[in-house]
Amino acid sequence: MEQFMTADFLLTTPTARELYHDHASRLPIIDYHCHLDPALIAADRPFGSITELWLGGDHYKWRALRSNGVAERFITGSDTSDWEKFEKWAATVPYTFRNPLYHWTHLELRTAFGIDETLNPESARRIFDECNMQLRTRPDMTPRGLMRRYGVETVCTTDDPADTLEHHLAIRNSGFEIKVLPTWRPDKAMAVENPALYGEYISRLSEVSGVRITSFAKLAEALQRRHDFFAEAGCRLSDHGLEEFYAEDYSAADIDRIFADVLAGRVVPEADVRRFKSAMLVLFGEMDHASDWAQQFHYGTIRNSNTRMMRAIGPDTGFDSIGEFNTATSCARFLDRLDSREKLPRTILYNLNPAANEVMATMIGNFQDGSVPGKIQFGSGWWFNDQIDGMRRQMNTLSLLGLLSRFVGMLTDSRSFLSYPRHEYFRRTLCDLVGADVEAGLIPYTGYEKQRVQQMIEDICYNNAKNYFKF
Amino acid sequence: MEQFMTADFLLTTPTARELYHDHASRLPIIDYHCHLDPALIAADRPFGSITELWLGGDHYKWRALRSNGVAERFITGSDTSDWEKFEKWAATVPYTFRNPLYHWTHLELRTAFGIDETLNPESARRIFDECNMQLRTRPDMTPRGLMRRYGVETVCTTDDPADTLEHHLAIRNSGFEIKVLPTWRPDKAMAVENPALYGEYISRLSEVSGVRITSFAKLAEALQRRHDFFAEAGCRLSDHGLEEFYAEDYSAADIDRIFADVLAGRVVPEADVRRFKSAMLVLFGEMDHASDWAQQFHYGTIRNSNTRMMRAIGPDTGFDSIGEFNTATSCARFLDRLDSREKLPRTILYNLNPAANEVMATMIGNFQDGSVPGKIQFGSGWWFNDQIDGMRRQMNTLSLLGLLSRFVGMLTDSRSFLSYPRHEYFRRTLCDLVGADVEAGLIPYTGYEKQRVQQMIEDICYNNAKNYFKF
Amino acid sequence: MEQFMTADFLLTTPTARELYHDHASRLPIIDYHCHLDPALIAADRPFGSITELWLGGDHYKWRALRSNGVAERFITGSDTSDWEKFEKWAATVPYTFRNPLYHWTHLELRTAFGIDETLNPESARRIFDECNMQLRTRPDMTPRGLMRRYGVETVCTTDDPADTLEHHLAIRNSGFEIKVLPTWRPDKAMAVENPALYGEYISRLSEVSGVRITSFAKLAEALQRRHDFFAEAGCRLSDHGLEEFYAEDYSAADIDRIFADVLAGRVVPEADVRRFKSAMLVLFGEMDHASDWAQQFHYGTIRNSNTRMMRAIGPDTGFDSIGEFNTATSCARFLDRLDSREKLPRTILYNLNPAANEVMATMIGNFQDGSVPGKIQFGSGWWFNDQIDGMRRQMNTLSLLGLLSRFVGMLTDSRSFLSYPRHEYFRRTLCDLVGADVEAGLIPYTGYEKQRVQQMIEDICYNNAKNYFKF
Repeated sequence: MEQFMTADFLLTTPTARELYHDHASRLPIIDYHCHLDPALIAADRPFGSITELWLGGDHYKWRALRSNGVAERFITGSDTSDWEKFEKWAATVPYTFRNPLYHWTHLELRTAFGIDETLNPESARRIFDECNMQLRTRPDMTPRGLMRRYGVETVCTTDDPADTLEHHLAIRNSGFEIKVLPTWRPDKAMAVENPALYGEYISRLSEVSGVRITSFAKLAEALQRRHDFFAEAGCRLSDHGLEEFYAEDYSAADIDRIFADVLAGRVVPEADVRRFKSAMLVLFGEMDHASDWAQQFHYGTIRNSNTRMMRAIGPDTGFDSIGEFNTATSCARFLDRLDSREKLPRTILYNLNPAANEVMATMIGNFQDGSVPGKIQFGSGWWFNDQIDGMRRQMNTLSLLGLLSRFVGMLTDSRSFLSYPRHEYFRRTLCDLVGADVEAGLIPYTGYEKQRVQQMIEDICYNNAKNYFKF
Repeated sequence: MEQFMTADFLLTTPTARELYHDHASRLPIIDYHCHLDPALIAADRPFGSITELWLGGDHYKWRALRSNGVAERFITGSDTSDWEKFEKWAATVPYTFRNPLYHWTHLELRTAFGIDETLNPESARRIFDECNMQLRTRPDMTPRGLMRRYGVETVCTTDDPADTLEHHLAIRNSGFEIKVLPTWRPDKAMAVENPALYGEYISRLSEVSGVRITSFAKLAEALQRRHDFFAEAGCRLSDHGLEEFYAEDYSAADIDRIFADVLAGRVVPEADVRRFKSAMLVLFGEMDHASDWAQQFHYGTIRNSNTRMMRAIGPDTGFDSIGEFNTATSCARFLDRLDSREKLPRTILYNLNPAANEVMATMIGNFQDGSVPGKIQFGSGWWFNDQIDGMRRQMNTLSLLGLLSRFVGMLTDSRSFLSYPRHEYFRRTLCDLVGADVEAGLIPYTGYEKQRVQQMIEDICYNNAKNYFKF
Repeated sequence: MEQFMTADFLLTTPTARELYHDHASRLPIIDYHCHLDPALIAADRPFGSITELWLGGDHYKWRALRSNGVAERFITGSDTSDWEKFEKWAATVPYTFRNPLYHWTHLELRTAFGIDETLNPESARRIFDECNMQLRTRPDMTPRGLMRRYGVETVCTTDDPADTLEHHLAIRNSGFEIKVLPTWRPDKAMAVENPALYGEYISRLSEVSGVRITSFAKLAEALQRRHDFFAEAGCRLSDHGLEEFYAEDYSAADIDRIFADVLAGRVVPEADVRRFKSAMLVLFGEMDHASDWAQQFHYGTIRNSNTRMMRAIGPDTGFDSIGEFNTATSCARFLDRLDSREKLPRTILYNLNPAANEVMATMIGNFQDGSVPGKIQFGSGWWFNDQIDGMRRQMNTLSLLGLLSRFVGMLTDSRSFLSYPRHEYFRRTLCDLVGADVEAGLIPYTGYEKQRVQQMIEDICYNNAKNYFKF
């Protein structure tokens, strides 16, 4: 029997171990999609406690706690202490066997704090105290310190076009040696389903762009100015959170009218909402193409399912789930619109429902044009799929229906400075997959091919992302 | 090479064997969802023959026979003998390699009859005679005898609100030590798509409830009386068979009008059918919440696909299959309606299409509220998914996206008194999954965690169901 | 560590090796669905070069090349040499690790050319020269020679009703010992969405059938004549390429009107297109039933997604992908229509989206009528699913939800005379699946059952197809 989480964790063959220890583990981290708060990196202050660091904003853990029968006041409540919350988490951890949280928790304890003990009710107080002591006393226990410790080279945050990027600029001016780049995430600029919120957003965008947005043409102008500003700030990619892809027919007049209606505060029909979003997706794609950015699409979520909790504690608190949308035809039509105009940027498609893995892994093949290796990418297992099985399925499907060799690899998608071990988790999983194939005689491992296998691992872990995003 | 179906059947690691033999195998069975006929338990008469017991109503076997080219008269015909039917089945069994029927058949022969021989054309007559001899001569070969032999503690049957529950009451009055509880399955009270059948049903419900049902309010009153009656009879849970979830907007006036139309014999538009069902689901949920029952939803079937056979031999005869419905959004909306009113009961969601496993395994997380561990459950592999691969996929998905530790586990969903070995099949599969993770170093297995692993197995096999359903 | 692709390639257990070497590998090939050009078999001329043979029409390889960043002129361009194209392919091959192309490439080199070396930039020139030398000098390196070498017994091509079948007749008259039979693929006779193309097609069909098609009744008459002609030419099965199944309600008058509209060049509404296709599917099914043919349905593709490349190089060039369609209900309704009239032919259902595997594997059970073993078949992993994982998933799902024993097995679906090793690939995968079950004690392997296991392998590889199609 293997012991728990040894140095060869997840590496079940000699070849897997060689590929990981001699190749994958040595490379820096490019975390090209995350939700880190740049203000925290700019300020670089110590963390208040392990509770703040671990439980302050992690909706994965919150869901586990609720599933385990823990009352909300011990999760997001303000009337419970750090210790009380931590204690509930420690009691829940042994109920998370087979869930990625169990591995993440212990990888984080080990790599950040050097703690090898398992977390459970018996060890809870010891670990709580040890972590807090380290957070209080070790000078490298800050956002920047943690990024350095994990060998991070580049991170891309997620930012609204109306964001001033002041923290990104402050970080750059501070001479921080790790690249912290913004990502253009203009979801709010499309969200015409709610005219009131949309109107507020447009006001903000008018202000920050210096363009008085009174028409769709002005909206496009304001967004272009912000896009240019993001580019100057080092942005190399965009991101879009969608339920589905939109590729309705529309005319310029339609879009002008819809925009005017929404600005006037009128709720427009669903069909118009879809038309408007169809137009926006093309507009954004063209902007990205002109700037030579890559565009990302994260689609297929049902968000804010729980009205009661949405009212109580707001969005992104653990009440989202995997949707069911038949969007392949629209996705193809949307990408074809950009491709037909020869304006299709490098593109990464992330599906939330793994039932669509094969759909997306074949979709990308429709628009590979030979200009860039792996120009259209099937994105790494996202959110709920960011675990061993989900990553394996994504990589297997990509392997069988496309070229794994050209995959740009892993990202954390995380709000936490402790999430970098997910890259380790991914790299071990990748090496195990490829190693198993080698051992089974499915991939040759001598001469030219041996070097190619090793190079493939290094490419997926590091080089592909570096080349693809042109950091 | 392993021999066929040894004591370590399905248990591929030492840890799996320890978990099964020392923990899982020793626990009683709670079969919280089945289709046993309570009249048979009340009467407790011997079975006529192995053909009656095995082939009398088992549409799994009927499908296999038809697929194997056996004519219908040897399956459901009345002009063929018990032996003729059994002979065809024995000839089909060796064509079911890799199908769960092959394992179920031999588990049932072994555990009920002590027969270790494989069933095939050469052994058919011997096994037929031996089984029939035992059924004739052994006094414990009755419904109650078989339930005792398999260590059953509680079973929940499936019953219509208009059912008198006379057999349940008779069983209770007989002093039978095994709990046989009814389950509230009110599908017919929603089935307004067929006004003629619906009218008949409403008459029956009027009669049994003592409420003259002339309006929707009266329908609700009649159902509430029956709900109370079921509760007195020991009912602790409801069950609903749905194609999809329904969560349309409707007003009380809509529902009154639709109900009046249907009672008047008018076919109402599809949109009205959906509105009505949306209202009924909320009504039922509120009733269950008030009674502190758990509610179950089995959704996603295409029923009675074969018109010719439906006319010839009726429903539930093997002509149903897995549907494709995009129902995640409706499911979330429906559950949110109950949750918003703080009336969401404990709930179990069973999808028939395993492509929706991830959808349902994340859906449950949206409504976990910390009041009960595992309040919302992703149900065990159902019907076509009730086999090794289906059970593994369900448990893996639940593990990765929720808490396997809180899973209420297995049920037979069966019409047969010989189906209890499916619990054994499930328990072996569970132990093998967890054992493999332990052996691979994915779960620790010393000290506190070792006990937790063993406890988790026992909880999933027995304790979780006991606590969840409050039997 | 296993060496790459030994004699025991893919065979991971002793039982698997026994089943493959002693049973599967010795049987002839029945390739009941392919896209070979019968003109090439009739002419039986040598191939110009390995580039022509490998890269001339293989959109799998083209997609890999584009994904690898190779410019289109080196793929389908006319201004690049055979060597230049081959060189690009050789450089891409080592980037296809884990993709079936890597295995197919080396299986083909080994079995057709006796080349054991791996293809990569270092070996490219050597292998290019060696292959071309063999193609130039070996008299058995022709279409017929390759078919003989691979032990082919029967192939079924894919042909339009308007096809003269002249090459099929020429092949038969030539005394070629391998059966080359046409397959009835009438997709164009349904394609009323494009009245202009449809009109042209109807003219061609009028001409070849000798029936002036001026009404739907005449269309049916013309098609029946061609159907009879195909039957005389040895056709035993039909094939249909569909996005979805169509089972709308329609009247004879509807169909007459729609046909008249389309013939008059009018674009008809989507609803009418679906009605028309619904009628055609029934008509074709009835014809096939009357002739005792099997019918095949390949559904679920999104075709020609890339408008720019469609214009540049036409259809079937690598710009198709897996669609998302909820078609289970329509599929059941369509099959039920034929079954209700007792005119349902033997039928094979192939889904492109593997997420529908369980849907189709249970759909077939709805219409098994005991007249023929495995009358309704869940087809082998198709197109993108024609790889180890896709074949395994199809066989596992069929095993668990139906009878693997009655499966008619593999087909190449290929345009190439070098694709027969895909049967080897399939047979090895099948033997490995069954062998692993034997070794794990899931299938008995002594006495009667041992023979049955071996027979099952031989049946799936050869006998089932032979009996099912009545060649």
